Amino acid sequence: MSFTQLEQILAQVRASLERDDVAQAMAVIERLYPADQADLLSELDNDAQQTLLPEFAPDAAADILEEMDDSEAAELVAALPTSTAVRIIDEMAPDEAADLLGSMDMEQAQAVLAGLEDPDEIRPLLLHPTDTAGGIMTSEFLALRQRMTAGDALTAIRNWLPDGEDISTLFVVDRYGKLCGMVNLRQLIVADPTTPLQEIMESEVFSVPAGTDQEECARLMSRYDLLALPVVDEAGLLMGVITIDDVVDVLEEETTEDIQRLGATEPLDRPYLDTSIVSVFRKRIGWLLLLFLTETLTGSVLRHFEAEIQAVVALSFFIPLLIGTGGNAGSQTTSTIIRALSLGELQTKKIWQPLWHEVRIGLLLGVVMAVVAYGRALLWGTTNGVALTVAVAIFTIVVWANSLGSLLPVTAERVGIDPTVVSGPAMSTLVDATGLFIYFTIAGILL
Amino acid sequence: MSFTQLEQILAQVRASLERDDVAQAMAVIERLYPADQADLLSELDNDAQQTLLPEFAPDAAADILEEMDDSEAAELVAALPTSTAVRIIDEMAPDEAADLLGSMDMEQAQAVLAGLEDPDEIRPLLLHPTDTAGGIMTSEFLALRQRMTAGDALTAIRNWLPDGEDISTLFVVDRYGKLCGMVNLRQLIVADPTTPLQEIMESEVFSVPAGTDQEECARLMSRYDLLALPVVDEAGLLMGVITIDDVVDVLEEETTEDIQRLGATEPLDRPYLDTSIVSVFRKRIGWLLLLFLTETLTGSVLRHFEAEIQAVVALSFFIPLLIGTGGNAGSQTTSTIIRALSLGELQTKKIWQPLWHEVRIGLLLGVVMAVVAYGRALLWGTTNGVALTVAVAIFTIVVWANSLGSLLPVTAERVGIDPTVVSGPAMSTLVDATGLFIYFTIAGILL
Repeated sequence: MSFTQLEQILAQVRASLERDDVAQAMAVIERLYPADQADLLSELDNDAQQTLLPEFAPDAAADILEEMDDSEAAELVAALPTSTAVRIIDEMAPDEAADLLGSMDMEQAQAVLAGLEDPDEIRPLLLHPTDTAGGIMTSEFLALRQRMTAGDALTAIRNWLPDGEDISTLFVVDRYGKLCGMVNLRQLIVADPTTPLQEIMESEVFSVPAGTDQEECARLMSRYDLLALPVVDEAGLLMGVITIDDVVDVLEEETTEDIQRLGATEPLDRPYLDTSIVSVFRKRIGWLLLLFLTETLTGSVLRHFEAEIQAVVALSFFIPLLIGTGGNAGSQTTSTIIRALSLGELQTKKIWQPLWHEVRIGLLLGVVMAVVAYGRALLWGTTNGVALTVAVAIFTIVVWANSLGSLLPVTAERVGIDPTVVSGPAMSTLVDATGLFIYFTIAGILL
Repeated sequence: MSFTQLEQILAQVRASLERDDVAQAMAVIERLYPADQADLLSELDNDAQQTLLPEFAPDAAADILEEMDDSEAAELVAALPTSTAVRIIDEMAPDEAADLLGSMDMEQAQAVLAGLEDPDEIRPLLLHPTDTAGGIMTSEFLALRQRMTAGDALTAIRNWLPDGEDISTLFVVDRYGKLCGMVNLRQLIVADPTTPLQEIMESEVFSVPAGTDQEECARLMSRYDLLALPVVDEAGLLMGVITIDDVVDVLEEETTEDIQRLGATEPLDRPYLDTSIVSVFRKRIGWLLLLFLTETLTGSVLRHFEAEIQAVVALSFFIPLLIGTGGNAGSQTTSTIIRALSLGELQTKKIWQPLWHEVRIGLLLGVVMAVVAYGRALLWGTTNGVALTVAVAIFTIVVWANSLGSLLPVTAERVGIDPTVVSGPAMSTLVDATGLFIYFTIAGILL
């Protein structure tokens, strides 16, 4: 749905609510898809949200909460009477319900949990951190038994009615509940009904322990084109299943975090406009201060070379140009290397591979930049000596920035730090002070 | 598979090939999954690749090519005899085969196409740009007829045998081939076999025209939790289906492009280490030069204020610190705004929303930075006047950088330019020249 459509519907809903005509408002909203209903509710104020949500059938309200941001959904549920909250959460997918309860106040979450029809479906999920396999898996799955025939399996599927989920991959367990195979719905339909599952199932199955990082699960499913990934405990017992739509969400979440970190800000936990300016401030000020303090090194370098600057003031005109170009070359390198690392294209053990690649790229870039900078400096009417200094400095700084830009992220990954800490701003800051040192040292030699 | 495992297997394969023992090498490789086989082949030299690939059964070789990067696969296929290439490509999924042919030399692609068993399955796919719905859809799908019963549909599925694809969503067409509904495999199994499809199918179905951008398709499928998305022509005739695993690939590809663009480099089309240093150089030099030329504005600003600098040399010590901090604040803002735009959290029409958010965040950040900068300047032994100038300047520059960082990406999106052009380096460069102007103007007033 486009923004314009959303705006129009929002206006209709607001108008109906002002006339206290809840039925009219509901008539408009009920025609939408859950994702759009969630967006629309998010735009309304708290009172309107609390009036409207209980008007939906519990399963429809559950669909809406599943589409909302966890913290936003938790706020909304917290304002509802516990009995209403219980009715709705009972209809949610167990993994989504667990995430929601995890975002709520402990006491309230306990009260809701106690009221649920089947709290044991959710309780184990609450134990796993939300960014692990255990946190994104669902505990609502149908495990087929190894001794079943294809016909038995189809009967079991007919009798098992989850919330209209679209299932295609089914997992097979042995008598102890241990994962031993997988079969897809199409294979079951094609097979003779009397064929034992053992004969049609694929017995080599990917699975992950519950503690596996969600990004690792996503990587595995994307690499091996899996539509479902089973989660097992230490003994190999099947605990839950991660489905491909969860992975799509994980990929989007991780991309958001990476891009925000690359801009030197801690990732926001909520949609941008819903994040208060104080929270955004908190996410940014730490990095900004740290970079500022590192950047003060440039002042020390400049003071160290005060005599040189006073002798040839023209040297100072090129300061921003030189360190700016160094920062840019460094940012180009880190952004490429960081993405290559997260796609698994680089091995941290072979740190010389990207370094050697970048040194050569830096040499090429450096030569071109040196020629351009030399010409530009002469055009400004500087002496040949200063122009030559600028050219040699920019060449050296670009090669240096490319080397640093390849070494730092790989080293970070190697020692277990998220390589996105080597953001563009961090690179620029590091290159600034070292770049100035290179510049004035070359000036000292050449002039 | 971990890198260490891959390395070990690679060593075994290389050793076997050196002894000319192809059978031994194949025995080792055939145990792996296609994605790992593709990785392993990529590490080998061209001769070894051309020796090994024809040794696989055509369907296994097809799986490997599907997992490879298109340009790499195209190179490998180009070196094979046409008859071998045809045998393998015949076994590929039509959408993957079309991508591969599209990456090949035109003449060779035509030769292969002419030899294929069913070229008409692939030919229409070649007409669509690879980054559109038509380019990522498969033409190999089973369309159910509206008049069928659930039982007929199951029979049709039993008789239709594609390359072992895991299907769960099926689309229904009317007698003219026009898309009119969808049904999932589970619904067919649960329904009474005599029920007409019309009664169980969902008739409200998302679909996209063939020209839709792949990112838009991915957004739609992720937002509405779709496992398959039908592609239709102008008349509503069903042309193909996009499956969720294609979307996972699209999301990864788009993330790679975004992250590389944010570092001010044109996206690489191939894995990093497989990209020659000359190609990487070409992807970067344009931006580096453009930013350099923009950055020369800083030189003009500095020359303009030459008298001020000569009067108070201490002012120049703070140049990198001030413009660096401005660039950092700007990068923090753009990275957040660009991601919010691509998640659809911001409306380009309401440009004042992020601006107002960022101005207030900038005021908070600016105050803290001003206090710290004032203290730091005094500690360096500068005069109170210079310290005050630095403090007021850093405050103004941070607010300015935040405003610019929110306005530029939204404006770019609004006029139809990819907002990632406002990368961190571009922001820093713009803030550098304007920041210096702010700094020396404030110095002129206060000193």
